[in-house]
Amino acid sequence: MVDCLSVKAGEGEGFPNSDGKSWFFPHSNLAMDIEAVAAATEERAGVFAGAWGWLKGLPEKLKNKAVEVAKSAKKLGQDDPRRVTHSLKAGLALTLVSSIYYLSPPFNYFGVFGMWALLTVVVVFEFTVGATLLKCFNTSFGTLCGCALGIGANNLAYLFGDKGPPIVEIILILLFLLGAVSSFIRFNPRIVKSYDYGVLIFISTFTLVAVSGYRTDDILQLADKRLFTILIGGATCLVISIFVFPVWAGQDLHKLTVSNLEKLANYLQGLGGQYFNEGNVTTGDMAALVQGYESVLDSKSDEDSWANFARWEPAHGGFHFRHPWKQYPKIGDLARQCAYHIKALDDYINSDDHIQAPLMEFRNIIRESSTKMSSESSKALKELALAIETKTDPSAANPHVENSKTAINDLEILALQAATTENREDVLAIIPIVSLATKLKEITKCVEKISESVHELSRLAHFNSVEPTISPERPQLVHAGSVVPVSDGDSIDHVAITVHA
Amino acid sequence: MVDCLSVKAGEGEGFPNSDGKSWFFPHSNLAMDIEAVAAATEERAGVFAGAWGWLKGLPEKLKNKAVEVAKSAKKLGQDDPRRVTHSLKAGLALTLVSSIYYLSPPFNYFGVFGMWALLTVVVVFEFTVGATLLKCFNTSFGTLCGCALGIGANNLAYLFGDKGPPIVEIILILLFLLGAVSSFIRFNPRIVKSYDYGVLIFISTFTLVAVSGYRTDDILQLADKRLFTILIGGATCLVISIFVFPVWAGQDLHKLTVSNLEKLANYLQGLGGQYFNEGNVTTGDMAALVQGYESVLDSKSDEDSWANFARWEPAHGGFHFRHPWKQYPKIGDLARQCAYHIKALDDYINSDDHIQAPLMEFRNIIRESSTKMSSESSKALKELALAIETKTDPSAANPHVENSKTAINDLEILALQAATTENREDVLAIIPIVSLATKLKEITKCVEKISESVHELSRLAHFNSVEPTISPERPQLVHAGSVVPVSDGDSIDHVAITVHA
Repeated sequence: MVDCLSVKAGEGEGFPNSDGKSWFFPHSNLAMDIEAVAAATEERAGVFAGAWGWLKGLPEKLKNKAVEVAKSAKKLGQDDPRRVTHSLKAGLALTLVSSIYYLSPPFNYFGVFGMWALLTVVVVFEFTVGATLLKCFNTSFGTLCGCALGIGANNLAYLFGDKGPPIVEIILILLFLLGAVSSFIRFNPRIVKSYDYGVLIFISTFTLVAVSGYRTDDILQLADKRLFTILIGGATCLVISIFVFPVWAGQDLHKLTVSNLEKLANYLQGLGGQYFNEGNVTTGDMAALVQGYESVLDSKSDEDSWANFARWEPAHGGFHFRHPWKQYPKIGDLARQCAYHIKALDDYINSDDHIQAPLMEFRNIIRESSTKMSSESSKALKELALAIETKTDPSAANPHVENSKTAINDLEILALQAATTENREDVLAIIPIVSLATKLKEITKCVEKISESVHELSRLAHFNSVEPTISPERPQLVHAGSVVPVSDGDSIDHVAITVHA
Repeated sequence: MVDCLSVKAGEGEGFPNSDGKSWFFPHSNLAMDIEAVAAATEERAGVFAGAWGWLKGLPEKLKNKAVEVAKSAKKLGQDDPRRVTHSLKAGLALTLVSSIYYLSPPFNYFGVFGMWALLTVVVVFEFTVGATLLKCFNTSFGTLCGCALGIGANNLAYLFGDKGPPIVEIILILLFLLGAVSSFIRFNPRIVKSYDYGVLIFISTFTLVAVSGYRTDDILQLADKRLFTILIGGATCLVISIFVFPVWAGQDLHKLTVSNLEKLANYLQGLGGQYFNEGNVTTGDMAALVQGYESVLDSKSDEDSWANFARWEPAHGGFHFRHPWKQYPKIGDLARQCAYHIKALDDYINSDDHIQAPLMEFRNIIRESSTKMSSESSKALKELALAIETKTDPSAANPHVENSKTAINDLEILALQAATTENREDVLAIIPIVSLATKLKEITKCVEKISESVHELSRLAHFNSVEPTISPERPQLVHAGSVVPVSDGDSIDHVAITVHA
């Protein structure tokens, strides 16, 4: 019985099942033995039944798992079809380099080093052109430095060392020093951001050259082969990356910035419809809008890495080589700040705090100016997004920013009037108005900052100016009109909600 | 003249300098030629002078650069001395594995494959134990799968293919398929987070085994050697990582969470001193506090990756194997939300908005309850930080959270009273009060959410309960008292500001 109990307790803790032992348990009497055997048999039966049940359920479970994996793969592909293209491109690069490896006469020369070309393809081929370029640069520069220093280390060791062990010791000391230094360098945040992989390649090449150098005595040939094979792999990746359905980090960054601003604009437009006018927007629409601004909050890491990769990309799709990519994350940071304020507003609207006030009356007081503020901010953001998208001057947003500021001032004055005309008992109704006004004001301020930042981008990137006021008789106006799509003028007066999600 | 201008304009855009051309310009007359020559000569002289100046300044610049690099390296080391230890450990691991490679008799067997051990060390050795473990797992699992499938692919090719080309074709097709599939898998965010490196190792091993298999005909031996050498490299890294000055991701995560809460608490405490009582805190102190909450905003990526690595670490420093590491980033997210609200408050206080009110009068009205709210929130956060730090029950924070909520309600009532007693002209003074109350209320709410999240952590991680109220006669109280440091009780009533930055 004691044994049996201990088995039970043991099982719970994950110890192995030791029920067989109870047959030989020295202190046991018959009654105990029978009980123990019965319990053990029952337990064993339970274990078997459990195992059988698990086995029987296995095909079903595996099927469900497979369906789940297939669904998530389908979603991954649908979210961005370029992922499928990229995978095929990667397969193509790998196959191409392998075929080169199989072509016997000229490439047999590389022997086992042909592998490096394949490994380079596996490691270097990235989603965007910029990332692939950066990795190619890292690989070649790291290999070059590693080879040079590796050869240098060997020469140094032979120069100063005697025959035999001392050379090994000198090389080991150099390995220790360079290994420690390059590990330390990798803590530098700027190195980590762009050149981490290069340092890794450097130290691995150095190790390879320095250590095999002593063994094979043909370092130069080894270094030369390694460089050449890496060049083959890198060049294949670059050519496929740039010329077969290229994915540009810069273009993605540009689009992300535009869509972030649009998402914020859509929420603000929806807010006017849902909260102040009721019924214009369904709960489903609103949920999509909320999802929109929440995705803005999570966009920082994408933005930062794309801005980093975009610097490496050649001119493409209307962006010249030195396009001010650094300005985009700045706009993104402000958009995220705005999204945080929107989140606070959204949480507040959906909390119980503002319901303590007589609801309808409260809404009536603030309806006009709140609706105006949110729609004007929304229009300003849409103008800014459009200006970035079409690479034109963002001045069209300025009047909307000003209108939004005026509306928020009106709201504050309204709140004051309410505060002074209400009697003491109804004074609780004022707090929600001022709270709301405070939150809306934060958003207005953010929109103003975003506008400034987009103007800065326009200045740095030499966006086409629309110039409608300076010289309306000049033919440039027609040209500018053709750059800005016709939908531009429409969207300003557009009140219906368009969900971009 | 025209040419000259065009040269100048071209320069501004970064076009090559084409001043030599003006000598043969067909439409030029003498005056224009002379002007052009003079300008070109002047320009050339300018270029030489510039180059000479640049060369003369080079040693100085190089010296400055070297000093700058040395300073930033010193700062990197001072910020976290474990970085220096880690670098030395990495150098040690590399040297150890190289020495094994140099020991001729037993390891000569591996030949060129000894390289893999070195490359594994270079790639696998990470700062924290958890990250190293995860990379070791990725390397071994990726290599195993890659070897198995590579051998399988070769067998398949020999089974179905005839002699010669068809085998190559089958292998190339398999390479294309697996290359494409594994590239696609890497888009899965869950895979990227933990197993990206494993997929990379898998596809590179598969390629290596599948392609060399055809060439060397001793795949099994190759696979076997690759596995063994990788094991040597990985094991060396693991032993050094765990037993020589180990750095635990879990411990770092734990400390980061504690310090984030403390930084928020310090700001709130400083706020009461600086803004409402004036003069208690210097501007320098306040700048340090601002820097504190701003660093909280940037802590997300560290937190997420450490929580990911900590799951892989064995029991250490009072944390058992299945410690609820996932709860820490949740607390961190709330702390960042709180930091965003604090940022909004800080921006507001430093803006001109609240100065439109008669300054001193306004401060006097709200001084008491604002100071109480910020000091109680600060105490609550400090209690929560202490509870996490000492792994004890965080109930001591509850009364402070309640006090903070009461204080913010008082502030709202005060604002209302002010609104009703002031006459119409002074009514502008109310807006800043309600604005401030709104912002403080957001912070109070966040602190409450943080408190709930820390209670959840305490429940999941089975933190020691202090139990002072349930059974004061039990001896456990003495034990509990010894778990909580004496400074605990002190810090509750502590009003002086302690800057932890």
